[in-house]
Amino acid sequence: MKNFRKTLTLRVPARMGFVNITPQVEEALAESGIREGLCLVNAMHITASVFINDDEPGLHEDYRRWLERLAPFDASPDVYHHNRTGEDNADAHHKRQVMGREVVVAVSEGGLDFGPWEQIFYGEFDGRRNKRVLIKIIGE
Amino acid sequence: MKNFRKTLTLRVPARMGFVNITPQVEEALAESGIREGLCLVNAMHITASVFINDDEPGLHEDYRRWLERLAPFDASPDVYHHNRTGEDNADAHHKRQVMGREVVVAVSEGGLDFGPWEQIFYGEFDGRRNKRVLIKIIGE
Amino acid sequence: MKNFRKTLTLRVPARMGFVNITPQVEEALAESGIREGLCLVNAMHITASVFINDDEPGLHEDYRRWLERLAPFDASPDVYHHNRTGEDNADAHHKRQVMGREVVVAVSEGGLDFGPWEQIFYGEFDGRRNKRVLIKIIGE
Repeated sequence: MKNFRKTLTLRVPARMGFVNITPQVEEALAESGIREGLCLVNAMHITASVFINDDEPGLHEDYRRWLERLAPFDASPDVYHHNRTGEDNADAHHKRQVMGREVVVAVSEGGLDFGPWEQIFYGEFDGRRNKRVLIKIIGE
Repeated sequence: MKNFRKTLTLRVPARMGFVNITPQVEEALAESGIREGLCLVNAMHITASVFINDDEPGLHEDYRRWLERLAPFDASPDVYHHNRTGEDNADAHHKRQVMGREVVVAVSEGGLDFGPWEQIFYGEFDGRRNKRVLIKIIGE
Repeated sequence: MKNFRKTLTLRVPARMGFVNITPQVEEALAESGIREGLCLVNAMHITASVFINDDEPGLHEDYRRWLERLAPFDASPDVYHHNRTGEDNADAHHKRQVMGREVVVAVSEGGLDFGPWEQIFYGEFDGRRNKRVLIKIIGE
């Protein structure tokens, strides 16, 4: 069994944003030399997500609005208890749960085994600083 | 390390619906000959989900209503930016994020290592056409 | 390839609650002797979650309130069809979908390959009885 590990560092200039990281994951897979196995891609931070969906800017605008409705930003410690710690990012911990921490992708014949529109995104909900994504691939 | 790959094709006659695919996943596992490992089951389309929950029709009716409240169908491009592309399925891309893209199931002693009520479902949110589910099993 | 399996039993005294199970998962990993691979941790029950986020009590209080807003407890069979089966826990099946069934964690150099604040939680939405969590680790 082979294994491969790599981290990506991302810095999203806004509080919320989505970045297509599929090319970097494909590059990591090529480096690994693994042709059959599983590829885990996860946010290493708890106010960020990794998810798979469509690379369409209108959809990402929809996601931004929808997540803001489901878990609005509010720095007040009266609205979110978490913000009593001095943080203002409680909303980001909620948005990340909706979008998920990680994806596991099949590796088949040396490639990411994807349907026609699947793309891997980093979802940032408390940006403007460096954050890391972990890629771990096992197989042979 | 062994690996096994199979796809299922599903066609749900309605826009939204849930299909128990546990028997097909068990069949794939038997075909694989793998007795210890991990089994990934994922939707290959971005308006569909694979998730684990209860095989109870009342619950599925509840899920339908709940997902419709969280992310209502609306073909209008004024409500969802994604629908400016000519699509009408923006809501489906949201519903899929709530229910998830994939499950990873432990394989132990040649079976799906499940609790008493766990069943694997395909969740369709933009049906009436063929879609695929990927099963990838690694182990030995 | 090595593989390792262990279950944890949890009993949360309230209907809803969150328990940090990171120490138990680390103990299982040490027992396994696996140094490179993937670690699956999943709820074996369909009214519970395993997820990764912050070990901060204020945040957990926020999650409780937020999940109660997204999918309120209501024993009535008129509100949730699932409760026509004689159950009163339909809300718990919804809350679990928001928080997720499972996490897959990379194992690197014999440890859980975590970012600075990642901790694994068991999320209970229909407690006051014993439930199980499955840990399955594969690698070498």
